[in-house]
Amino acid sequence: MPSSTQPGPSAADIQAAIDAKTKPIGALGRVEDTAVQLARLQGTLKPKASTCRLLIFAADHGLAQAGVSAYPQAVTRQMVANMLSGGACANAFASALGAIVSIVDAGVGGEAIADETLIDRRIAPGTQNSLSGPAMTPAQYEAAIHAGKTLAQDAGEDVICLGEMGIGNTASASLLAHKIAGLPLEQMTGRGTGLDDAGLARKTETLRKAAARTPKRLSADSALQEYGGFEIVMMAGAVLGAASARKPVIIDGFIATAAALAAHTLEPSTKEAMIFGHVSEEQGHASLLATLNASPLLSLDMRLGEGTGALLAWPIVKAAAAMLRDVASFESAGVSTQGSDP
Amino acid sequence: MPSSTQPGPSAADIQAAIDAKTKPIGALGRVEDTAVQLARLQGTLKPKASTCRLLIFAADHGLAQAGVSAYPQAVTRQMVANMLSGGACANAFASALGAIVSIVDAGVGGEAIADETLIDRRIAPGTQNSLSGPAMTPAQYEAAIHAGKTLAQDAGEDVICLGEMGIGNTASASLLAHKIAGLPLEQMTGRGTGLDDAGLARKTETLRKAAARTPKRLSADSALQEYGGFEIVMMAGAVLGAASARKPVIIDGFIATAAALAAHTLEPSTKEAMIFGHVSEEQGHASLLATLNASPLLSLDMRLGEGTGALLAWPIVKAAAAMLRDVASFESAGVSTQGSDP
Repeated sequence: MPSSTQPGPSAADIQAAIDAKTKPIGALGRVEDTAVQLARLQGTLKPKASTCRLLIFAADHGLAQAGVSAYPQAVTRQMVANMLSGGACANAFASALGAIVSIVDAGVGGEAIADETLIDRRIAPGTQNSLSGPAMTPAQYEAAIHAGKTLAQDAGEDVICLGEMGIGNTASASLLAHKIAGLPLEQMTGRGTGLDDAGLARKTETLRKAAARTPKRLSADSALQEYGGFEIVMMAGAVLGAASARKPVIIDGFIATAAALAAHTLEPSTKEAMIFGHVSEEQGHASLLATLNASPLLSLDMRLGEGTGALLAWPIVKAAAAMLRDVASFESAGVSTQGSDP
Repeated sequence: MPSSTQPGPSAADIQAAIDAKTKPIGALGRVEDTAVQLARLQGTLKPKASTCRLLIFAADHGLAQAGVSAYPQAVTRQMVANMLSGGACANAFASALGAIVSIVDAGVGGEAIADETLIDRRIAPGTQNSLSGPAMTPAQYEAAIHAGKTLAQDAGEDVICLGEMGIGNTASASLLAHKIAGLPLEQMTGRGTGLDDAGLARKTETLRKAAARTPKRLSADSALQEYGGFEIVMMAGAVLGAASARKPVIIDGFIATAAALAAHTLEPSTKEAMIFGHVSEEQGHASLLATLNASPLLSLDMRLGEGTGALLAWPIVKAAAAMLRDVASFESAGVSTQGSDP
């Protein structure tokens, strides 16, 4: 419950500090809004956003066996290997921007992956197929929430970015958005990594069947157990953990936003920690964001996942903190203000 | 003339290299477009955008004496001092993002500023008032173009960001856009750093009088001499210099875009080097960008100048280069492609 316990500057104090900076009032737009959020969250006029860790959660989905993706399920494991060897887009972005990447096995199909840099939190080799029953047991759900929460809390960096890898996970995210927020399933169902029309029709039909198995609306924890992926539950846990540690957590695409929706429903005050990085091209993301009253910082026509949209937003968050911390005031810099005599 | 002389991969080669990367086709949207531009500009599939210099050009405007800004003219000099001591927003952003800042005195009013970190290229202590005659002489214009060109060419960094400081320079930029591109003067005239309605009316009337002094349309070099500021002419020169050295140059707000328009008119191939960083809140910027067929990467409701919008776009450019250089291919990473058998 960040807002009730943290001392620190009031909203008016923060605004006054920003308005005293050597720039026209309001001239940094969304960067100023972000600075206000950071100051509120951290309870200080000297917020920190200088270091960043991207947590990429990977898992497989029983539902993927129904053919809801353009890629075979083996790609989850192959992409984890690619990420571990630094070859994925998220690695290239993180390296360019100075962020650290951790790959978390939340439940990739097959045997456990032997790699010393991989963080092993695997719950099971993929979820059960949610067409025929709950994706996971209550105990698996609790373990996944806990793992995500702890990883975000224990990270030594100022900012957390969330990323995911899991063939079939837009299908899982669609069902979560539908069951938790009541958004129409058709509106939430998109092409994912690149389904054609026939593939999209098959995915839509599969999701309709899976959704029909449970009541129209579900609580966040029921929805996550029924339809979640282990990676999505861990991301929801990571949002809870980041918020409890007062760390900003950057959310990007459709899947991360579904996890954020779940976390927000479980604990509304987590919203204070959420920064929305990028609006995805994936159908349904814009309306899901609207449900959360969220306006992402970036719109770059991306739809990759892996936390790539979160990473690209981090420099803006970093710059916002630096602005509030380091920019001189009109008074300290001896600069005349608007309307002063020439 | 970058396109005619540079060897390197064809557009098809570049697209094939991007499409082979371990990501769904097209999934990085504008980042992919940026990577294509960098590869074309530098003639390589391993483009470089790892280091960045922000050149901030500062100068005063004779036209500012007519009261076209919310701030007194002394603020130009005061803000140069603030920038030299690291206290401005551009300094904070650059420091956060790892860019280097150079402050260039292009023609600040008053005595020369004594500071060993300042780059002294001052042409005169401010331009002449363009209400009554040309802002600068042909010799001053040539000197300013040359100074900007040389600074961009000689910078050791991969990427150039352009910034400016000059009370009254939105007025100068409005006149340039009007005379060079034929855009309606009213549409190009905005509130700058924060004029109220009366101030905006006065500015509009002043600009109408200044515009009436010369023919309806002017060549880019005539327009720059008649209405330019020394900082705007140097920015146009810097665009020419960056393009000739095949360095990407990031353009942000209304004033930088007016300089880019002038450079583009003088030398159309400079467009290949231009990356548009941010669409400003300043009235007229969106239509000026449309004239250049430019789609900025960011839209963060900013209207500060100083190159702040260019700096925030640089990490995206850096990430784009890293993607093309460093991301593994499906083949090299052993990842199955779309439509493979599971």
